[in-house]
Amino acid sequence: MKMKPSTALNELPVLELARGLARREWSAEQVMRDCLARIEQREPEVGAWEYLAADAALQRARELDRGAVQGLLHGLPIGVKDIFDTADMPTGLGTPIYSGNRPRSDAAVVATCRGEGAIMLGKTVTTELATSFAGRTRNPLRSTHTPGGSSSGSAAAVADFMVPLALGTQTAASVIRPAAFCGIVGYKPGFGKLVRAGVKSQSETLDTVGGFARSVGGAALLVAAMSGDRRLLELESGGVPVFGLCRTPEWAHADADTRQAMLDARAGLAAAGARVLELELPALEGLTQVQTEIMFFEAARSYSWERLVHFESLSPGLRQMMESGMAISPERHERNLALTAQARSRIDDVFGGVDVLLAPSTIGEAPAGIGHTGDPVFCRQWSLLGLPCVHVPFALGGSGMPVGLQVVGRAGGDLAALRAARFMEASLGEGASHA
Amino acid sequence: MKMKPSTALNELPVLELARGLARREWSAEQVMRDCLARIEQREPEVGAWEYLAADAALQRARELDRGAVQGLLHGLPIGVKDIFDTADMPTGLGTPIYSGNRPRSDAAVVATCRGEGAIMLGKTVTTELATSFAGRTRNPLRSTHTPGGSSSGSAAAVADFMVPLALGTQTAASVIRPAAFCGIVGYKPGFGKLVRAGVKSQSETLDTVGGFARSVGGAALLVAAMSGDRRLLELESGGVPVFGLCRTPEWAHADADTRQAMLDARAGLAAAGARVLELELPALEGLTQVQTEIMFFEAARSYSWERLVHFESLSPGLRQMMESGMAISPERHERNLALTAQARSRIDDVFGGVDVLLAPSTIGEAPAGIGHTGDPVFCRQWSLLGLPCVHVPFALGGSGMPVGLQVVGRAGGDLAALRAARFMEASLGEGASHA
Repeated sequence: MKMKPSTALNELPVLELARGLARREWSAEQVMRDCLARIEQREPEVGAWEYLAADAALQRARELDRGAVQGLLHGLPIGVKDIFDTADMPTGLGTPIYSGNRPRSDAAVVATCRGEGAIMLGKTVTTELATSFAGRTRNPLRSTHTPGGSSSGSAAAVADFMVPLALGTQTAASVIRPAAFCGIVGYKPGFGKLVRAGVKSQSETLDTVGGFARSVGGAALLVAAMSGDRRLLELESGGVPVFGLCRTPEWAHADADTRQAMLDARAGLAAAGARVLELELPALEGLTQVQTEIMFFEAARSYSWERLVHFESLSPGLRQMMESGMAISPERHERNLALTAQARSRIDDVFGGVDVLLAPSTIGEAPAGIGHTGDPVFCRQWSLLGLPCVHVPFALGGSGMPVGLQVVGRAGGDLAALRAARFMEASLGEGASHA
Repeated sequence: MKMKPSTALNELPVLELARGLARREWSAEQVMRDCLARIEQREPEVGAWEYLAADAALQRARELDRGAVQGLLHGLPIGVKDIFDTADMPTGLGTPIYSGNRPRSDAAVVATCRGEGAIMLGKTVTTELATSFAGRTRNPLRSTHTPGGSSSGSAAAVADFMVPLALGTQTAASVIRPAAFCGIVGYKPGFGKLVRAGVKSQSETLDTVGGFARSVGGAALLVAAMSGDRRLLELESGGVPVFGLCRTPEWAHADADTRQAMLDARAGLAAAGARVLELELPALEGLTQVQTEIMFFEAARSYSWERLVHFESLSPGLRQMMESGMAISPERHERNLALTAQARSRIDDVFGGVDVLLAPSTIGEAPAGIGHTGDPVFCRQWSLLGLPCVHVPFALGGSGMPVGLQVVGRAGGDLAALRAARFMEASLGEGASHA
């Protein structure tokens, strides 16, 4: 066993950390202790964790140190959004309704991570039932500001160097938005890439499991491990991507920081040798509304038990969301699903000659306040289309908080999206990002 | 309160039973007592129930009798396949791995049924994790024979007059096949019609919640209540349907009984004034294989916790299914999903001028033995396509066991499928069916 590097292990880039663990250059226990030290120091301010299994995690780390190298995630501590079932930790779903809830089994992807050698360190704060009603987590970069949501604790924990990786989910914007507000990489894979078994279901049409890391390679590693798709590890080949700059029909919402990020990205990518085309996408018109209605309709029905048995324990906002959802008729929902199917079948054409789209992730920097999680407007259409999305942080906005953009891939184009995101990360200067 | 009819209440047609409950012609307690008496008498032979909440059900019945009429299912006892989460009953999933498992909440459709006044009487036997490895349930019509699966107990309980309605799920053939073998109506709604939240996930591409009844109207009532789509209650209008007789590419598997059922149906429907066209469906070619591979791939991953943590507790057959599933590559799965999307988008065209298809449900009568649940070959393609299917029993096979056919509707055509099934039920003689 080598000496620890002078940098604390929790601050190492995840690929380097994983490599060192696999080569036994440092122990899983050392990594875990550095993560726990960081958490001890910072958790009172950040509030990223709903439950921390520190002792069990250390014990598991020592077991891993004694045994054979387990898999892609050997010894890596992972934070798990508190809507994933865990057999050894409570699953509270951000609502007192599930206080003390102990599922029998692990969500499928949690089990897979453990099978790959990961150590599930704890459950991270989620908004109420993964909707928009905020938990207590603060943005680690500025504690007066929201970290975004609904995967609030996962994004904050990774951004704050508490863990190298964390699991989240996205129904509207719940991976990309908190990644953007916290200045890290968020990867929402294409729909169907990861199974959702054991993850609380909000909207079957939209819910997508994703992950957080401080680099594109880290996010790719996590999803490669969970999906078993090892192709996602090959990010450094594939040539220079062609980007399609896509302002989306929601462009009027973008503030000066996001507008500047689009200009900077275009210039920076071109300077790095990439072709960047401008794309008009009238095909996206109306999809934000369709996504909202589908989410409301399905959430109200998926949460039938909570709505019918525990209505009084829901926040007023969520009660209203449920009522709006129940007011949407089955006929209208059928129409919305038909529009979705049509849009999904046609979206490939709009990519034309480009490999990926480059689009805003958020209106701008994380807004002030922790009572809300920001506007999901720039993510709804991509969630509806089920396309792979990778948020890449590369700039700072007017108030010094992170800003970035999302790479959007074709259906089935997760690898191309990750490669383009990696290209962007490398060419726009990793130094500019928080990580 | 009127006197009970001379028929035991558990034997009444469900629509009549529901009407009488809503009008207080008989009490929910009387209905429950008759169901419980039947269960007490028959359960030792049939083995339909994994868990019976007799006392709680009687108590709930008395509460309903004292209060206002609750909804579409007021006072109706319902059996729940033991892969639906229930907050007040164990959820065992047909495997010792989940022995004593007590979920915190109800599956969404269970909560909705309760909200509509239903009384969840107990959990019915499922095959192991809803796959093909049989439980202990026997066919109530002949106890040496399988009731079919995976929703074995639900189908047997309804066929045996233990309950008027029961919940099931279908991934390959798990609603239609047990309905056929037990001689009752099984209704697998179109994909997306019912939310799956709180139902054990086997294959997100395929899993569909459905229901059992002894009449088409009963099955429609159940799904209307669960989905909130009240249009499904209007079965008696819509005119005479046009049927497309569809032997499917699996026709060579059909035995003499199924072949005879197709001939009889054609003649009987024509005699009742319906047009029956013969359809060739080359578009279905290969879909059975695609369905099988998708199911294996997704089940192996959705059941990751069971596979990685409790492999030794799985049956040898399920272990092998898991290993086959893990051997299918992500590339192949992507290809299979692309073929599915293509087939789903094209299937509407093959309906041409017909309202519904009429196709075999099973190879023939329930086979002897209870160690297996029969061949799913005639259901796989419809599960893959996500089309609404209604099994209608109307004949007896060579050995005196029930035979029938399934009506297959277009995507979004649940109402048309139910109306055609109702037309078929009326014209082919309800007397011929077991119910």
